Amino acid sequence: MRARRIPLSTECAVCITKTIGKVVPMLTDTWERQSELYSKAFRALSDGYANDLDVPSTIIPLMMELYSAAGANDPFNIIKQKSINAAMKDLPLIEQSINRFSDFEKFRTSLSAAIAGNIIDYAHAGDDPDLESLECVFKSVQREGFAIDNSKELWHRLKSSSGKVVILGDNAGETVFDIPFVRLIKELEWSVIFVVKGLPSMNDATKNDVIGTGIEQLAMISTTGARAYGTPKRFVSEQFLDLVADCDLIISKGQGNLETFPEIQEEFEKETYYVLRVKCSHVASILGCKKNNNVVLRQKNM
Amino acid sequence: MRARRIPLSTECAVCITKTIGKVVPMLTDTWERQSELYSKAFRALSDGYANDLDVPSTIIPLMMELYSAAGANDPFNIIKQKSINAAMKDLPLIEQSINRFSDFEKFRTSLSAAIAGNIIDYAHAGDDPDLESLECVFKSVQREGFAIDNSKELWHRLKSSSGKVVILGDNAGETVFDIPFVRLIKELEWSVIFVVKGLPSMNDATKNDVIGTGIEQLAMISTTGARAYGTPKRFVSEQFLDLVADCDLIISKGQGNLETFPEIQEEFEKETYYVLRVKCSHVASILGCKKNNNVVLRQKNM
Repeated sequence: MRARRIPLSTECAVCITKTIGKVVPMLTDTWERQSELYSKAFRALSDGYANDLDVPSTIIPLMMELYSAAGANDPFNIIKQKSINAAMKDLPLIEQSINRFSDFEKFRTSLSAAIAGNIIDYAHAGDDPDLESLECVFKSVQREGFAIDNSKELWHRLKSSSGKVVILGDNAGETVFDIPFVRLIKELEWSVIFVVKGLPSMNDATKNDVIGTGIEQLAMISTTGARAYGTPKRFVSEQFLDLVADCDLIISKGQGNLETFPEIQEEFEKETYYVLRVKCSHVASILGCKKNNNVVLRQKNM
Repeated sequence: MRARRIPLSTECAVCITKTIGKVVPMLTDTWERQSELYSKAFRALSDGYANDLDVPSTIIPLMMELYSAAGANDPFNIIKQKSINAAMKDLPLIEQSINRFSDFEKFRTSLSAAIAGNIIDYAHAGDDPDLESLECVFKSVQREGFAIDNSKELWHRLKSSSGKVVILGDNAGETVFDIPFVRLIKELEWSVIFVVKGLPSMNDATKNDVIGTGIEQLAMISTTGARAYGTPKRFVSEQFLDLVADCDLIISKGQGNLETFPEIQEEFEKETYYVLRVKCSHVASILGCKKNNNVVLRQKNM
């Protein structure tokens, strides 16, 4: 159950191309410019297969190139705002549910909320998330539990010591559902650094997407320094790497960070917990679980 | 409402890539070979966008290249056999329904069956067809009617004269649902030539897929001579072009023939009726109707 390199599978091909089909029309209106971007995108994808690249090494430079070629800054802004609003609307109910519990059960329920938020993802082959059903998803995560479950180890780790924890955030809106979890960790006297993306890419959260949600009162907000999903080592800032070097524990949200952070984790030998909803059977097979499973996976040393 | 060139739209990009994602794993089992084929496929797609090709000019050579690179002959054979069996199972019920009517209503109902069969398509972005529900689809086509409806003109044309009609067949299984329609045309004393594909490509019907279904007793079976969907002019045989030149009327089934036959129709100035289920909003917008609409479209002179 080690997090490791995610090669371009058959399923990835479909997923990436559906993502391309979603992104390109958001980047430019004209048919000629869209055709140019499609041509670039499929060329990059072809090269990715020819050179046996993994998924992030294929998609991240491709997305950077598309955004840059289109002169686009934040085409997912409206989608992100809708996601944040939907999550903010449901947060009080989620908090009520969490506050019915105490100690480990409370912590575990806050993890369920953080995983439920992880369904707010517009970069995979499935249907776009139903923002009206976030609370239902939270309940179903509670009911289903975690297929890989190192939540007890995380709880003990957080209870038995303190220090600096870096949380690698994921998508806009999802970050709102991380709030109860962040609050609990802060109450356990950890200092929390919450990392968002340096520049917009798809619906990944940037500073703009978290400031004002309340999380900034619980955690220091920092960034990867990159326009990219996850934390790709070749694109993140020195400042981000210093943050990792300097912290005691990492909590990593979502598939994008699972795909990219292990390279940095290995270098700095940082204990990391990967918290996510598994979005595809390809990643599921790598983790040894199933699509749509909920995962809290401890990776002590890479 | 003229049938015309189908450029590569955003929707086409998604559709084609989903088709690639479906076909490649059927062509070869090994990861290395699949990667090579994906690389080829996405390179061709990139070039298609760069050179402003239309859909068939992009996909047909690409599919030919994939089949040839994989040394594959008929990977959809099992799917095609299942489709034929499902259609043969439902045909008696369909025939019963049709035989409740007479004259134009009978003819129109046989057209509904021919359109219902057109859902047996594995080369588009939607879900694969539910082979258990073919009779239900037939009933819904009857209920919905034809959004573009030149069925009366076709009926009068077939009633008022006779000669040679070429039917451009489409997918395996779908051809079974064309049988009542072919029988009626034959009863009107037309000589029917039913055209299938020269070599297997996706789930398009070849000679092997129609011989034994009973249609060969009603019509002469001929082929396009090509391993390609539709009737792409640069790939079809001289014999096929002679057939077109020599006939009095064409009935063309499905989107693939709508995408490709107009070039030949224009050259030979043959009155053609395009009979299909509209599978995507892109073709719908070109025809001036909606996705999932049923169409019987007369094109007298191109």
